Amino acid sequence: MSEYHQIFDLGDFTTQHGATLRGAFLAYATYGELNADRSNAIVYPTWYSGRHWDNEWLIGPGMALDPAEYFIIVPNMLGNGLSSSPSNTLQPYDRARFPDITVYDQVAAQYRLVTEKFGIERLALVTGWSMGAGQTYQWAVSHPEMVERIAPFCGSARTSLHNKVFLEGVKAALTADSAFAGGWYGENWPTIGLRAMARVYAGWGFSQAFYWEQEYETLGYTSLEDFLIGFWEGFFLDGRDPNNLLSMLWTWQNGDVGRTPGFDGDTEAALASIKATALVLPAEKDLYFPPEDEAWAVSHIPNAELRVIPGIWGHFAGHGSNPEDTQFIDSALSDLLGKPGGLA
Amino acid sequence: MSEYHQIFDLGDFTTQHGATLRGAFLAYATYGELNADRSNAIVYPTWYSGRHWDNEWLIGPGMALDPAEYFIIVPNMLGNGLSSSPSNTLQPYDRARFPDITVYDQVAAQYRLVTEKFGIERLALVTGWSMGAGQTYQWAVSHPEMVERIAPFCGSARTSLHNKVFLEGVKAALTADSAFAGGWYGENWPTIGLRAMARVYAGWGFSQAFYWEQEYETLGYTSLEDFLIGFWEGFFLDGRDPNNLLSMLWTWQNGDVGRTPGFDGDTEAALASIKATALVLPAEKDLYFPPEDEAWAVSHIPNAELRVIPGIWGHFAGHGSNPEDTQFIDSALSDLLGKPGGLA
Repeated sequence: MSEYHQIFDLGDFTTQHGATLRGAFLAYATYGELNADRSNAIVYPTWYSGRHWDNEWLIGPGMALDPAEYFIIVPNMLGNGLSSSPSNTLQPYDRARFPDITVYDQVAAQYRLVTEKFGIERLALVTGWSMGAGQTYQWAVSHPEMVERIAPFCGSARTSLHNKVFLEGVKAALTADSAFAGGWYGENWPTIGLRAMARVYAGWGFSQAFYWEQEYETLGYTSLEDFLIGFWEGFFLDGRDPNNLLSMLWTWQNGDVGRTPGFDGDTEAALASIKATALVLPAEKDLYFPPEDEAWAVSHIPNAELRVIPGIWGHFAGHGSNPEDTQFIDSALSDLLGKPGGLA
Repeated sequence: MSEYHQIFDLGDFTTQHGATLRGAFLAYATYGELNADRSNAIVYPTWYSGRHWDNEWLIGPGMALDPAEYFIIVPNMLGNGLSSSPSNTLQPYDRARFPDITVYDQVAAQYRLVTEKFGIERLALVTGWSMGAGQTYQWAVSHPEMVERIAPFCGSARTSLHNKVFLEGVKAALTADSAFAGGWYGENWPTIGLRAMARVYAGWGFSQAFYWEQEYETLGYTSLEDFLIGFWEGFFLDGRDPNNLLSMLWTWQNGDVGRTPGFDGDTEAALASIKATALVLPAEKDLYFPPEDEAWAVSHIPNAELRVIPGIWGHFAGHGSNPEDTQFIDSALSDLLGKPGGLA
């Protein structure tokens, strides 16, 4: 795990909805070297509350994302606490006043990093887990001329209504704590709300069968309650600022490639515009990104394959904690990188 | 809908865990007439926060539960606000001090009603939805000599670990509201917590596909948010006392026929002891009582059939709101009542 990262200055960043973040910035990390013709770049965005180092499990020697072969850029999402976020933005756009950031905005910021900082014109691959998958789809829609391949795993091009409802529960639990104070809490964070949010999330992150099999024991947890406290409450108490969490949650709830300018809300048309070769990887028992939703997306993308990650880990198949799932995803990425890109 | 009900005095009711509720009582309603040889009685317990009138959709002329043919007893669960509950018990066992009630206790109380009040020795059928299904299983284990048939729908004999986690999220959302005050709120109920609980519940009660298809429109809701407020928040704000909700939630989380005295925690042995002819009806897309769990239960009951309720309504297939599901369940009950009972 490397906490080392670089900062790319976005200057005045105007969002899709018209706010301007002055002095905005992206925190990012890179792995490997950009080759001479700048043809080996991969973008691998972060997931809900994830930081760049949380993506490193899928990067390494001998893996599909091998830094000896590829130049892998991991941009931190706006809102995640490292890039511009409620927690690190000066007034008046600080904390509860941080503007709404769309997935389109996330990719617009990353596009500037990729083109202005590195002069990259083509991406060999965009890939990501969960909200990272949403950004992956968005890359292929926002910049079809740049993206050779996409591999979204455990995520969607448009956040489904059920997924929004799941997130409403998460949000309601966090904000029910009066210490949240409309986002104007001080140094005393609403930890009751964060712990409640963690318990709500726990049922969604892993499948019914994961719990039935007590698979959490393989992660070192000694009882169900130990898993709820040790993994889940610990997860959300680990420096995850509530306003940041709510900012990213808004981004997630409002994800839809159909809202890319030019598509007027037509998600199917946006999917149909994708030129990249796509390998779409939902997890068999993902409770908020179920495989049937991705089958729908694949049916609208010209050159796409659906490959379901089997097993009982549910959404967290894409978290890097289960070796079998990691191998499945890595192998899928190898297959995809061996195929012609969509711009060939 | 009939709010008319009778009261059965339980006197001093000692729970499985050793508390004694003094002056305890069951509220119940009956439909039809007990016949001369007392062979036509059906028990149909209530579900989580449900009241007897919420069961009436499955009772009627020409239906399997026809009051012209059967004597149908609907006992309200302890904790539901009509039978002895945190909200209607005098100190010192009132409110947050209401004792833990097991599913075993629920059936023990109902057994007294059925035998002492009505002199019934055999039940033609026990059936119920959700927690009502849990009580159905418990009847067959607590009193195998009495129960001819059982038809648990969308429920389980033992609350699964994942189901417990779902309920942890519900509980955490409700209690994150500081107005809950450890259960010692006065007239100002923790409505923020109740609304948060409702939003958490919303994602679980219906399936992903139900939301994808915007099926809530068939219930008269005009948008997703209208459904979340109009149906879900309205549901939990409709006189549902928070301590009552938590009492029933504890009962639910701790449901396990294996904890019936004599079985020492061995759920499979308890299921194997069932003499009733069983028709087990999980819903295809129930997110907290998935069909595979009930397939497991059926595999341990000597004379049981699994029949999955098809469709996208998820858990609420058993709520009586979708005519197709209602017809499926009613038809299944007719089939079961046409079969020989397990005590024949």
